[in-house]
Amino acid sequence: MYKYTYTYLRIYILHRSNMAKESEPWEWRMSFPDGMSMLFISECIPHTPGFIVGLLFKSLELMQSGWRYGTSEPRKIIHCFKVGMAMCLVSLLYYVNPLYEGVGGNAMWAVLTVVVAFEYTVGATICKCVNRTTATFIAGALGVGVHWVATRFGKAWEPIILQGSVFVFASSATFLRFLPSVKKHFDHGALIFIFTFILISVSGYRVPDLFDFAQHRLSNVAIGTSICVVTSIFCCPVWAGNELHSLILNNMEKLADSLDAYVAVYLRDDADDMKKEASKEKLVGYRSVLDSMSTEESLVNYARWEPAHGGFSFKHPWKDYLELGTLLRSYANCIDALSGIVSDTKAPAFLKMQFSTVCLKLSLNSSAVLRELVVVVRTSAESPKIGLRLNEMCVAVQELHNALKALSNQNTVATETKAEEFSEGKGELNVLPFVAIVQLVTLSSLLIEIVARTEKLVKAVNILAHKVTSSE
Amino acid sequence: MYKYTYTYLRIYILHRSNMAKESEPWEWRMSFPDGMSMLFISECIPHTPGFIVGLLFKSLELMQSGWRYGTSEPRKIIHCFKVGMAMCLVSLLYYVNPLYEGVGGNAMWAVLTVVVAFEYTVGATICKCVNRTTATFIAGALGVGVHWVATRFGKAWEPIILQGSVFVFASSATFLRFLPSVKKHFDHGALIFIFTFILISVSGYRVPDLFDFAQHRLSNVAIGTSICVVTSIFCCPVWAGNELHSLILNNMEKLADSLDAYVAVYLRDDADDMKKEASKEKLVGYRSVLDSMSTEESLVNYARWEPAHGGFSFKHPWKDYLELGTLLRSYANCIDALSGIVSDTKAPAFLKMQFSTVCLKLSLNSSAVLRELVVVVRTSAESPKIGLRLNEMCVAVQELHNALKALSNQNTVATETKAEEFSEGKGELNVLPFVAIVQLVTLSSLLIEIVARTEKLVKAVNILAHKVTSSE
Repeated sequence: MYKYTYTYLRIYILHRSNMAKESEPWEWRMSFPDGMSMLFISECIPHTPGFIVGLLFKSLELMQSGWRYGTSEPRKIIHCFKVGMAMCLVSLLYYVNPLYEGVGGNAMWAVLTVVVAFEYTVGATICKCVNRTTATFIAGALGVGVHWVATRFGKAWEPIILQGSVFVFASSATFLRFLPSVKKHFDHGALIFIFTFILISVSGYRVPDLFDFAQHRLSNVAIGTSICVVTSIFCCPVWAGNELHSLILNNMEKLADSLDAYVAVYLRDDADDMKKEASKEKLVGYRSVLDSMSTEESLVNYARWEPAHGGFSFKHPWKDYLELGTLLRSYANCIDALSGIVSDTKAPAFLKMQFSTVCLKLSLNSSAVLRELVVVVRTSAESPKIGLRLNEMCVAVQELHNALKALSNQNTVATETKAEEFSEGKGELNVLPFVAIVQLVTLSSLLIEIVARTEKLVKAVNILAHKVTSSE
Repeated sequence: MYKYTYTYLRIYILHRSNMAKESEPWEWRMSFPDGMSMLFISECIPHTPGFIVGLLFKSLELMQSGWRYGTSEPRKIIHCFKVGMAMCLVSLLYYVNPLYEGVGGNAMWAVLTVVVAFEYTVGATICKCVNRTTATFIAGALGVGVHWVATRFGKAWEPIILQGSVFVFASSATFLRFLPSVKKHFDHGALIFIFTFILISVSGYRVPDLFDFAQHRLSNVAIGTSICVVTSIFCCPVWAGNELHSLILNNMEKLADSLDAYVAVYLRDDADDMKKEASKEKLVGYRSVLDSMSTEESLVNYARWEPAHGGFSFKHPWKDYLELGTLLRSYANCIDALSGIVSDTKAPAFLKMQFSTVCLKLSLNSSAVLRELVVVVRTSAESPKIGLRLNEMCVAVQELHNALKALSNQNTVATETKAEEFSEGKGELNVLPFVAIVQLVTLSSLLIEIVARTEKLVKAVNILAHKVTSSE
C-alpha cells in the first residue's frame, strides 16, 4: 500500500511549457521506484479540460513534497497534531452549555486566539500570548474609558469623539509598529491593541453593557492563551532555546565541513572528480549559514520568553548567540570568497604539491578548533583541548608563512623553468604560472584571514561559556 | 514650541545601572540644543517610586526614537494616517443603521480584516486580501458542507463528527503552512481557512441559520478587503515593485561606494586618518546588502500581485530581481573578505605606491561598471557606455596582472634591500615585507574575483533589461 502511494506521488509533470500551447498534446511521466517509468499524453485522459488535469497533478506534486517534508521533519507533524488537539479543546466551549454561557456566547475570540497565537516553539507561543492578553487588557480599559468620556458629550458628539479617538490611536499604534524596538517584541500586541480598542470603543454605540462585553473579550482571550501555553509546554514542547542552540552548533559544523571540503578539492589534482566525490552538501553547507540571520534573530527573541528548561536557566545569555551568529557569518563570507578561487582553479600540480601539506594542515587545524568550539558550546565548559588546538593552528600559520616565503624565493626561477610545461600559446605562456601563484597566495591569505576570524570566535565562545557558568 | 518639545525629548537616562542599587541616587541629564545640560538626581523628584520615573524616561526615549524615525521616513507617517482613515471608514459600519443591519451585526469581522490586512505596500495588501477572501469562501463552504453532513447523523453523533473534522482540517492546514511553497504565498490564507472552518462548522451547533451566518462573514470580509485595497491603491500608494527596484539600485550604489572606499583607504599612506575621513557610512554600506535577502524575497513576492504602475507592466520580470540580489550579495561577500585585509593593513608605502595606480584604476573601473548597471536597470535600456566600461575594466585587469608579474621579479630583491627599513626586531625583519606582499597579492586577487562577479552581474542585468523590453 505504502509503495503504491509513494509511486503515485512520484508523478511528474514533464513538459509544463506545453500546457500553454493548447494545440499540442500534454505529456506527463510517472516514474516507479524500480526505475520503470510511464508516459501519459493528453489523449489518455479524454474529455477532461486541461486546467483540471493540471490542477490534479499540481496537487499531487504538493502531496509529494509534503510527504518528503513530513518524513524529514517528524516534529512538525507532532506540532500539527498538537494544533488539532488545541482546536478541539477550544471548540468544546461551543458544545458544553455552562462554558458557552460563561463566555457570553463569544467563544469565537477564544478560537481566534488559539488559531493565531499557537506557534511552533514554546517561546513564540508565550510571547504572542503575553502580547495578546496585555494588549487586550490595556486596549479594553482604554476603550471603555474613551466611550465613557464620549457619552458625557451627548448623542450628537459621541460618534465624532469616538471616530477621532479611533483615528488617533490606530495611527499612533501603527506608527509604533514601525519602530524596530517595538516591532521586535510587541508587533502582535500593537495589532491586537488597535483591534480591541476599535471593537470596544465603537461597539459601545451598539452594545448595552460595554463593561460586560469587554470583560467577556478579555476572559475569552485568557482562555485561548491558557490552552495555547499549556498545550505548547506540556505536550512534546519545542523550545526556541534548544532550536537556537542546535542551529548555532550545526552552523559551526557546516562551516568546518565546508572549509575542509574546499581546501581538499582545491589541492587535489583531479579537482573535478573530487568535487563530485566530496558530497556536494558539504561544499555548499556554508551558504545556509549566510542565510540564517533572520531565523537566529527571531529565535533569540523567543528564547528569552521561555522558562528554564533542559540545561538552560532562565537567565541564559541568549543575546550572546547573536554575536556568535554574526562571527559565523563573517567566517562564511571568507569561505564564499574562497569558493570563487576554487571554482576557477588554475594552479599547476607541482605548486599544489608543495603547498598541500601546509594548507591542509592549517585548514584541518582551523576546522578542528571550530569542532572543539562546538564541544565548548554544547557542554558550556572550557575544553582542555582548545588551547592545544589553538597552538597547533598558530604553528600551522607560521609554517604557511614560511612556505610562502620559500615560494617567493623560487618564484622567478620557477616561472622560467616550468613555463615550457604550459606551452598553450604565447599569451598563456606569460600569464599562466603567475596566475597560479597568485591563486595560491590568495588561498593562503584567505586561510590566514579565516584563522583570524576563528580566534575572534574562540573569544566570543569563551565569554559565552563564562556567562553560562556564572548564570547557573 | 517645537524647540521645547525637541529639547524635552532629548532627556537621557545617564546612569541606568544605578537603578538597580536602590540605595544610591539616580541621575539623569537633560541636554539642550544650545549645548547646556541639566543634571537630575532622584532627590529632585521626591516621593515617586523609582520604576515609575524609569518608565517615564523610557517612554520619553521611545518618543525621541519615534521622532527621529518619523522625520527620516515621512512616507511611513502617511501610511499611519491611511490606516487611521481606513479604520474610521470601516467603523462607519457601526454608526450607520442600514449598514449595521446589512452586515448582520457582525461588523467586527470587517474591522478585524482592515486591522490585519492593511499592509504598508499595495502588493502585500492585495496578497493578504485575496488570501483572506478566498480562504473565507472555501472554508465557509466546507464548514457549511461538513455541518450538513454531521446533522444527517443525529444529535448524538454531530459533535463527534464536527470535532473530528476540526482536528483533521486544522492539522492538515497547519502542516501545509510549513511547506515552503505554501508558506510563501498562502500563509495568511491557511490561517484564515482554519479559523473560518472552525467558526462556521462549530457555530452550526448554536446558530439557527448557518448559511446566513457564513454569508455575513464573507460579506464582512469582502467589505473590509475592499476598503483596504481602495485606500491602499488610491491614497498615496506605496508599490512593492517600486520599493524592490530602488532597493536593488541602492544596493548597487552602496557596493560601488564601499569598494571605492576600501581600496582608497588601503592604498593611502595615512590609512587611519583616511578611514575617519572617508565617511564611515560608505565603508559599511555593503553590510546592509548582506542583510537584505529576506526583504528582497518578500518584496518580489508582493510585487507580483500588483497591477501595472509607473514604468512597470503587469508582466514585469520581478523574479529576476532575486537573481540580481543573490549576485549582489556574492559581490558583497568579496568586499567583506577585503575589509578583513584592509583593517589589518601592513603593506609598506613604497609597495603601495607601486600598486596604487593599477588597483585604484581597477576598482574605479569596476565600480563605474556597477554605476552604469544602475542606469541600465533604472531605464531598462541597454547603455551605450557599458561595453566601453567593460573594456576598460578588462584592460585594468591586464595591467594588474602585469604589475603582479613585475612584483614577482623584483620580489626577492626588494625583500633584501628594503628589509632594513623595517628593523623592528629579528622576527619581524624576516616576516614583514613578505606579509605585505601577500596582502597586496590578496587584494589584487580579490579585486580580480570582484571583476569576475561584476561580469556575472552585467549578464544578469542584460537579461533583465531584455525581458523588460520584450514584456512591454
